[in-house]
Amino acid sequence: MSKFKKGLEGIIALETEISYIDGEKGILEYRGHRIEKLAELSYEEVVHLLLYDKLPNTEELNEFFNKTKVIRELDVRTKEVIHYHNFNIEAMDALMTALAHISQGDPDLNVNTPEANIRKALRLIAKAPTIVAYYQRIHEGKEIVKPNELLPHCSNFLYMLRGEVPTKLESKILDLDFILSTEHELNASTFAVRVTASTLSDIHSAVISGIGTLKGVLHGGARLAVMNMLDEIGSPKKTEEYIMNMINTKQRIMGFGHRVYRVVDPRANIFRDLAKKIAEEKKDMKWYDMATKIEEVVTRELVEKQGKPIYMNVDFYSGVIYKYLEIPPKLATAIFALGRITGWLAHAMEQYSDNRLIRPRAKYIGEHHSQDKEISKLTKD
Amino acid sequence: MSKFKKGLEGIIALETEISYIDGEKGILEYRGHRIEKLAELSYEEVVHLLLYDKLPNTEELNEFFNKTKVIRELDVRTKEVIHYHNFNIEAMDALMTALAHISQGDPDLNVNTPEANIRKALRLIAKAPTIVAYYQRIHEGKEIVKPNELLPHCSNFLYMLRGEVPTKLESKILDLDFILSTEHELNASTFAVRVTASTLSDIHSAVISGIGTLKGVLHGGARLAVMNMLDEIGSPKKTEEYIMNMINTKQRIMGFGHRVYRVVDPRANIFRDLAKKIAEEKKDMKWYDMATKIEEVVTRELVEKQGKPIYMNVDFYSGVIYKYLEIPPKLATAIFALGRITGWLAHAMEQYSDNRLIRPRAKYIGEHHSQDKEISKLTKD
Repeated sequence: MSKFKKGLEGIIALETEISYIDGEKGILEYRGHRIEKLAELSYEEVVHLLLYDKLPNTEELNEFFNKTKVIRELDVRTKEVIHYHNFNIEAMDALMTALAHISQGDPDLNVNTPEANIRKALRLIAKAPTIVAYYQRIHEGKEIVKPNELLPHCSNFLYMLRGEVPTKLESKILDLDFILSTEHELNASTFAVRVTASTLSDIHSAVISGIGTLKGVLHGGARLAVMNMLDEIGSPKKTEEYIMNMINTKQRIMGFGHRVYRVVDPRANIFRDLAKKIAEEKKDMKWYDMATKIEEVVTRELVEKQGKPIYMNVDFYSGVIYKYLEIPPKLATAIFALGRITGWLAHAMEQYSDNRLIRPRAKYIGEHHSQDKEISKLTKD
Repeated sequence: MSKFKKGLEGIIALETEISYIDGEKGILEYRGHRIEKLAELSYEEVVHLLLYDKLPNTEELNEFFNKTKVIRELDVRTKEVIHYHNFNIEAMDALMTALAHISQGDPDLNVNTPEANIRKALRLIAKAPTIVAYYQRIHEGKEIVKPNELLPHCSNFLYMLRGEVPTKLESKILDLDFILSTEHELNASTFAVRVTASTLSDIHSAVISGIGTLKGVLHGGARLAVMNMLDEIGSPKKTEEYIMNMINTKQRIMGFGHRVYRVVDPRANIFRDLAKKIAEEKKDMKWYDMATKIEEVVTRELVEKQGKPIYMNVDFYSGVIYKYLEIPPKLATAIFALGRITGWLAHAMEQYSDNRLIRPRAKYIGEHHSQDKEISKLTKD
């Protein structure tokens, strides 16, 4: 019990059938399917794969879509609670509060069966985007835009957020963002979800642990940090100098480096291509040019000259894409959560299916006070 | 990377100076002080010890009390949010929602400095009991009872809950319940708190992960299960038969067994004495007699005959004590959280002080699909 790996680095905490990462080769699979293949599908198909361990046929996909499209709307009380939110903060905190509120009204809240958990999972996936969109609309002083049952999941989210149907490419990009964000083995938020589920707490509580954990800048908060960095740099011309200054002063460059990958994150490669497409559609190469410049400088200075495996990760180009989708920065982490929620739910259900309480030990490194010494009794009894 | 310990049993996840457990000898220390000694103090003194790593002198204790007693009240909006709660569920879910709401209004929400975290910690400790008391009063259709600045922390909670000042013994008992509940090394909820904090997410989010994790029946939910079991048994005479039936049908007996202890939980011994005292004050030995009978049967059958280390744990007599304090069962887990919150906060701050992202690995045991096979493209692009 004396040695330990800080941050549990490289320690196997559990077995899973949900995803597979080879950090040396840059391979990522969900349920045994390579991420490059899954990137061709719709988010709904990937959700079906993760929750039911099966890619849907046309009939199953239609059934899934019909079941979820009608449960996107929020009840009156949840809308009231969103009105009480603080709009000067990240949407993440609003999402957490509203989901905690919604959990109280869920008829299956404390029913922990596979069937009830699937029902709760579908409700959570369907309603979470509505919370974020309503929050933003209310914040902007605009009328809320009710869910549109004709639109698929991601397209509907952009519609509720902006009040107009997005372009085909925009929808495709958000679909891909959700697909690439939804699952990544035992990242910190998914691990938190499983720790919560391992006490046999309810699946809403498990997801809420995931949200709180994703928020941190060493995890989902990195996208917001990337967006802020792009804003701060301001133009492609200033990029080299800005990044060189960060490197020289040994600052962490957001969107680069990963605990598991020793090569480029396979998700980042897919994102880069898409960032270029949307830049071309918008006829605005600014963010894309800045991004490729940052990547070039970091690769040259840190990877090639210093030999460090600091490659771009999934957060880097997703931050760039959010700039093109005109996502308000304070929504960035919450939108990551809207994608990741499906992975969390799949992991919570897998934890329940073969549970053992996750309860490690700590090594005590403080002092032991003498047992003879009387503790000074300060209060009168 | 191929072997692993399910539930991370016996695996050291991190180093701590907060608490020490010797599970073989039944020793528990907070900051190097034995639990038996700490049981003589007030909850405020133990809070000071955990947060500041120092037992307070009279002046420090007064300062601490003066600082916290004035911040117990909730703002108007939080009270409104509590009115929107569902009162048919556990108070735990109400506590989670209200704390998430409160976090949004905290002026230090995203300030992660030791000073800001102490300020947030004191607010959370001071306000959490008010949430639970208001929730229960509103549920009962009664006027809320505002915090009383003349009363110490635990005594004030009982006062807000019932509308009258508790007896000296009742206050002492709740103080002790909070002291014994507040900290226990890397139990699942505290571990979840540290996983959340390790992404550098905010301390409110970390505490909310703790709440969701504590709720499960394999953790804090055990107290509620003990209370429900006592109610179901109904009388001391029926106890032997009821427990024998559970043992014969191999059911888990709530309040017995612990991942770490191989002897009686040292906290349970302290609780047992106190349960007797309150039973005598209330002139009602029923719950105490049932409890000692359950302990006797379990010890005889499982420990002595079967040689299993299934001793009573902290949840057992605390469930008994809650019966005497006439705590509504659905408040049981939330009250555990009101005690445990200080330990969570101390751990979150320790995590921030020397952080490394907690991100273990999973072992993939699913299949790998062929890369040649085309994924059937189901949706039209």
